[in-house]
Amino acid sequence: MDFREKLSNIVHENDSLVCVGLDIDEEKTPTFLFNTSKDPFFDFNKSIIDATKDIVCAYKLNMAFYEVLGSKGFELLDKTIKHIPRNVVVILDGKRNDIGNTAKKYAQSLFEKFNADAVTVNPYLGKDGVAPFLEYKDKCSFILCRTSNPSAVDFQDLKTQGKPLYKIVAEKIKDWDKIGCCGAVVGATYPDELKTIRSILGDNIPLLIPGIGKQGGDVEKTVKYGTNSKHEMALINSSREIIFAGDKEDFAEKSREKAFSLQKEINKYR
Amino acid sequence: MDFREKLSNIVHENDSLVCVGLDIDEEKTPTFLFNTSKDPFFDFNKSIIDATKDIVCAYKLNMAFYEVLGSKGFELLDKTIKHIPRNVVVILDGKRNDIGNTAKKYAQSLFEKFNADAVTVNPYLGKDGVAPFLEYKDKCSFILCRTSNPSAVDFQDLKTQGKPLYKIVAEKIKDWDKIGCCGAVVGATYPDELKTIRSILGDNIPLLIPGIGKQGGDVEKTVKYGTNSKHEMALINSSREIIFAGDKEDFAEKSREKAFSLQKEINKYR
Repeated sequence: MDFREKLSNIVHENDSLVCVGLDIDEEKTPTFLFNTSKDPFFDFNKSIIDATKDIVCAYKLNMAFYEVLGSKGFELLDKTIKHIPRNVVVILDGKRNDIGNTAKKYAQSLFEKFNADAVTVNPYLGKDGVAPFLEYKDKCSFILCRTSNPSAVDFQDLKTQGKPLYKIVAEKIKDWDKIGCCGAVVGATYPDELKTIRSILGDNIPLLIPGIGKQGGDVEKTVKYGTNSKHEMALINSSREIIFAGDKEDFAEKSREKAFSLQKEINKYR
Repeated sequence: MDFREKLSNIVHENDSLVCVGLDIDEEKTPTFLFNTSKDPFFDFNKSIIDATKDIVCAYKLNMAFYEVLGSKGFELLDKTIKHIPRNVVVILDGKRNDIGNTAKKYAQSLFEKFNADAVTVNPYLGKDGVAPFLEYKDKCSFILCRTSNPSAVDFQDLKTQGKPLYKIVAEKIKDWDKIGCCGAVVGATYPDELKTIRSILGDNIPLLIPGIGKQGGDVEKTVKYGTNSKHEMALINSSREIIFAGDKEDFAEKSREKAFSLQKEINKYR
């Protein structure tokens, strides 16, 4: 089963475009877990997954939050991914990038060692830095196109050949998708750019969309501009607002409530 | 002691601009080590470091080659860095990049957890993705400017405001260096671009230059165009040609011979 099929199946099964970001953070983790659990971060992730797995389409794990824990973080990453039901999409968000023979090692690490369904890749090095990821035909590589942060404008908006760089990147993504499954990362904080990018990419390329919630992205516009003509092929990510919704024993229920409310809000506009 | 002082000290002490890339690779590691050593990759790195530490200015560890080994790879990374003498510069080459609060975790991981002197950072996300690295005032962030691979042209050469993108990135690096120590990554495979970038960056910004050896970069041009007016502030990297110079018991001696010969060749042009 290839990535698009897996994504489409879970979107229908759970009726959801919600992607939950499992971005663990010691300072925000319910403190009682450090007293009651021998493996607090894993128990935290496990509880969030168990509480939300029937109302999401994907989990995204940003590798920075695991890498900062050193080798234990990588064990935690591995254990967490193994706990996610196999019908739900797993995205390893590492924004990796390197020249060909080295990019190959990253692809091997993320797709084989950690068994991710999808990864995020930074396009600055061009096609031969992306190609080793695209060799994994059943997986998907979400290429950074227009990021959600304020400084995204520094380079991504620079006009070249009469259009901003992010449009050129979008056109390349469309092209690279012929080699292997490509997606695009586009911030919800820039709805006009989201609309433009969806129109360049057409119906078949999935968008990973961070930036709603604390970063300020609007859900209605995100759904309207980010999904394809069937109101699918968009993964709308929320991390902190969902996973740190509560800090007491009922934190997982609170996270479910937040995820459920986001699921309903998104579906209202589909 | 800040980064530039540390770099300058070791360049004088060892009379060398050679940076050795400790890019471990199971397929290329001398096979006898897997029979004689309980910790073959560490013993490999240890032998290379012991054999070359007085004729190099830096070691660069590309994180892809460690990450692919999972959590053990991160233990190996840590052990290897601890074995490098503290007067030699340690560069963690991860090309990391993310939005502000997440980039902060990467900076914490690389500078605090692994105690690197310098890191490599991808600029596609703009200033706020780079700033968390620059908060470490005694460290250095080498920003990807013009990479050594053939597809570097895909985006880095696109003309914007009448000049190629890599020049705009170089100008930003010069600007960001006011916030915290910046360097630039420029491939030896593009000598004209190297010359242009050095002229934009002036005398004080170090260049990390991969791409000589197998990738085809010319040593004379690299030295001439990459160093500053004092023939310093350039770290000329070689990985595979040095560390995999031999595959028998004398592999470390062979690697020293290669490093020594590169040191001499570079110094001939300084």
